[in-house]
Amino acid sequence: MSKVITPRETDYSKWYNDLVVEAGLADHSSVRGCMVIKPYGYAIWEKMQQILDKMFKDTGHVNAYFPLFIPKSLFEAEEKNAEGFAKECAVVTHYRLKTVPGEKGKLMVDPDAKLEEELVVRPTSEAIIWNTYKNWIQSYRDLPILVNQWANVVRWEMRTRLFLRTAEFLWQEGHTAHATREEALEETMKMLEVYADFAENYLAIPVVKGVKTPNERFAGADETFCIEALMQDGKALQAGTSHFLGQNFAKAFDVKFADKTGKLEYVWATSWGVSTRLMGALIMSHSDNEGLILPPRLAPVQVVIVPIYKGEEGLNKIRQKVAPLINEFKKKNISVKFDDADNARPGFKFAEYELKGVPVRLALGERDLENDTIELVRRDTKEKFVLPVNAICDSVEKLLDEIQHNIFRKAKERTESMTHKANTYEEFKEILETKGGFIYAHWDGTSETEEKIKEETKATIRCIPLNNPKEEGKCIYSGKPSNQRVLFARAY
Amino acid sequence: MSKVITPRETDYSKWYNDLVVEAGLADHSSVRGCMVIKPYGYAIWEKMQQILDKMFKDTGHVNAYFPLFIPKSLFEAEEKNAEGFAKECAVVTHYRLKTVPGEKGKLMVDPDAKLEEELVVRPTSEAIIWNTYKNWIQSYRDLPILVNQWANVVRWEMRTRLFLRTAEFLWQEGHTAHATREEALEETMKMLEVYADFAENYLAIPVVKGVKTPNERFAGADETFCIEALMQDGKALQAGTSHFLGQNFAKAFDVKFADKTGKLEYVWATSWGVSTRLMGALIMSHSDNEGLILPPRLAPVQVVIVPIYKGEEGLNKIRQKVAPLINEFKKKNISVKFDDADNARPGFKFAEYELKGVPVRLALGERDLENDTIELVRRDTKEKFVLPVNAICDSVEKLLDEIQHNIFRKAKERTESMTHKANTYEEFKEILETKGGFIYAHWDGTSETEEKIKEETKATIRCIPLNNPKEEGKCIYSGKPSNQRVLFARAY
Repeated sequence: MSKVITPRETDYSKWYNDLVVEAGLADHSSVRGCMVIKPYGYAIWEKMQQILDKMFKDTGHVNAYFPLFIPKSLFEAEEKNAEGFAKECAVVTHYRLKTVPGEKGKLMVDPDAKLEEELVVRPTSEAIIWNTYKNWIQSYRDLPILVNQWANVVRWEMRTRLFLRTAEFLWQEGHTAHATREEALEETMKMLEVYADFAENYLAIPVVKGVKTPNERFAGADETFCIEALMQDGKALQAGTSHFLGQNFAKAFDVKFADKTGKLEYVWATSWGVSTRLMGALIMSHSDNEGLILPPRLAPVQVVIVPIYKGEEGLNKIRQKVAPLINEFKKKNISVKFDDADNARPGFKFAEYELKGVPVRLALGERDLENDTIELVRRDTKEKFVLPVNAICDSVEKLLDEIQHNIFRKAKERTESMTHKANTYEEFKEILETKGGFIYAHWDGTSETEEKIKEETKATIRCIPLNNPKEEGKCIYSGKPSNQRVLFARAY
Repeated sequence: MSKVITPRETDYSKWYNDLVVEAGLADHSSVRGCMVIKPYGYAIWEKMQQILDKMFKDTGHVNAYFPLFIPKSLFEAEEKNAEGFAKECAVVTHYRLKTVPGEKGKLMVDPDAKLEEELVVRPTSEAIIWNTYKNWIQSYRDLPILVNQWANVVRWEMRTRLFLRTAEFLWQEGHTAHATREEALEETMKMLEVYADFAENYLAIPVVKGVKTPNERFAGADETFCIEALMQDGKALQAGTSHFLGQNFAKAFDVKFADKTGKLEYVWATSWGVSTRLMGALIMSHSDNEGLILPPRLAPVQVVIVPIYKGEEGLNKIRQKVAPLINEFKKKNISVKFDDADNARPGFKFAEYELKGVPVRLALGERDLENDTIELVRRDTKEKFVLPVNAICDSVEKLLDEIQHNIFRKAKERTESMTHKANTYEEFKEILETKGGFIYAHWDGTSETEEKIKEETKATIRCIPLNNPKEEGKCIYSGKPSNQRVLFARAY
């Protein structure tokens, strides 16, 4: 194997970075904190986009596009939102460069081209969108507005990691407007369910659905709902959020509608998003020391066929055998790659496709031709089978489904085995230090306690799970009474 | 009709803007020069994206994503490119806002958060991409690189118009790297053909393929090829460009590869792009005073069915009749909308779908139910037919194809009728003043003459058409000898 991945056990963080870079998913760029998403990584992201886009459209949403820039005065309008993002804003102040006098080929910012009003590069689009919705909404007939945007956003992060935290990232942000509080809340929950469905049934990542504490809410939201996943190192990752924005943005931008009686009311809002961060979740949930393990529903290449041959004539025989298989796979909408490149040995190719997480590898040699067999290796379990070639496409079709479910099952078992209960603060800290993972513990409901625990242990309340069982107990920190456990973890 | 479109004859420019706004395609935003692409406009753009993306992939390309920002020092590296775009660059100089002291809720740029090096918001991505390719390319085995990116770009334009010229726009930019000059040239031409195919067979816009004069070349290119289309007002619109970049960027970013003999050579490059400007071309090529005329292959809704009924019972009867039709249309992959909303009369709906350019409108009333008929109106010719309902889906399927071809044919005839030859400068100027359109005329091949003509008439050389017939003549401006006519026009 030509590419070396640091073992998980040695350095989890380096393992992750090696995987991302060596599997050709993404790389650091020359721009501080910004990544280049390489073709193989982008192909996975495209699959995510296609599936999510269909889910959004099936739930009645349409796409639109709003400006990248937000004038500072608009950005300020919703005060909490502005305050929450102000520290991370990239700001455009000038609109022209000019040649440095006397230095041909050197450019400088032209001081004469200073903008009258600075432009914030969107860290999120509520401000520019609600400023637009003001023009779209007059009456209840204009509601609901169910719009999604696929876009890039910029948040100036000091410590960045490929996919998990980058200054620029790609995402989708839904922004909806409703006539009633109930309808907006319903939308918020509907999209949370869409995200959970996507995470579990496509990414094969089990998630806990819940609501954030006020401390962890999106800046400008009345409630933030989230899906939380647990990575292999025992750290949690927030995989998607759905916000009930109340009338905060409607009030900030003065967006009212006339109801059926003609009475003017402020509009109710939601916003919801997932980002290229999901790439990080996908990688960290399933992969091993040999490389990526991709759920078949998101794998750009689901099946690879590697010929093992001597000479052009040998290869031609295999080509003839493989051609109808390729057709059959295509008919079944299974993406297949026949790798007959002559610049690498089969062993090298095997390692490469293992690294890239291709779910099923088929190999075909001279003996297989004689016996009408084909070798199959599952990426998830590494099991090897020799199968009759005539039924191989049907077998692979069933197997891809099984792999999808197996990857999810494995992640679910892992998550469950890493989910603990702590009844005292000592126990809580010990679990964090020795095992990590999700910890259910009693909390007195105050921000003060939440902050103290974070300060002392780096663990945060990931969420208060939906349909959380009621249970009398005492806050692990303050000893005050509590009627439910909440979900703690150290998080990405 | 509720919405008023200024007639083309009265004010072409206002007609265009009214169409864009009233048909719900796009609108001005609160950000100078930036537009909001509304859901209906974005749905058309999505169709363009899907078709083009498939064409790119069918020709061997993959997608990737590169940073939005380009550090000034990288931007400078290819001198001509930098010089060409410097005047239009939005520049990020700071990465944080802070509260204005003593003014809660007011934000200012934090002077302590000044970037060490300014970041240019990409006006085009050659610089950041070639800086990245440097790390991807060592040997001939790494070539070719055939990458495309779907992205937003920013060019600070002083005079903007929806879709045609906006400070921010959406586009795709292909960036390829090759081992030989021949291969890069072949790629340049291949993508020009893809664009011409897309323009003629999907947008239904006839185009002239050609090469730009040195004056009109992309900054940093050795040659720029283009497709040029003619709008209804006789002005030309550059609809797509494909650049042969030679080794300019490879030299600027020191990107070399080892050939089979181990010798180091600079890499050859191309880039090519089309943008949301195509939306403008689409609108201006086909539409009329009643609204948009969309080619069926790009229409988000291809068929609308409007019920004409009295009371809920009447509507239910129509619903029953229409349900199997909707299923049949869906099976044929024809996008259909049944508009049974009760908030508008049929006449209002008819006008609305005419405005939105839906290619086929079906209407069904009580008498149709009795007679087993359905009324069909073509948007392109406004012809009305009453047809038997049982074969309607097959008829519509054929008709959509015919409409697609008819719209192209009509645009082609119009373009031909607006294409002229001028043999003298007087004739040239007279055609420009009285008719506009494409003008084929002799030119002496000098930038000086080209600039003079532009200065005096606002007409530019759109391109030197490919496979241009050789013809001896004299330059209309200088009288010097010329061996071919070139294509002039005033342009968007």
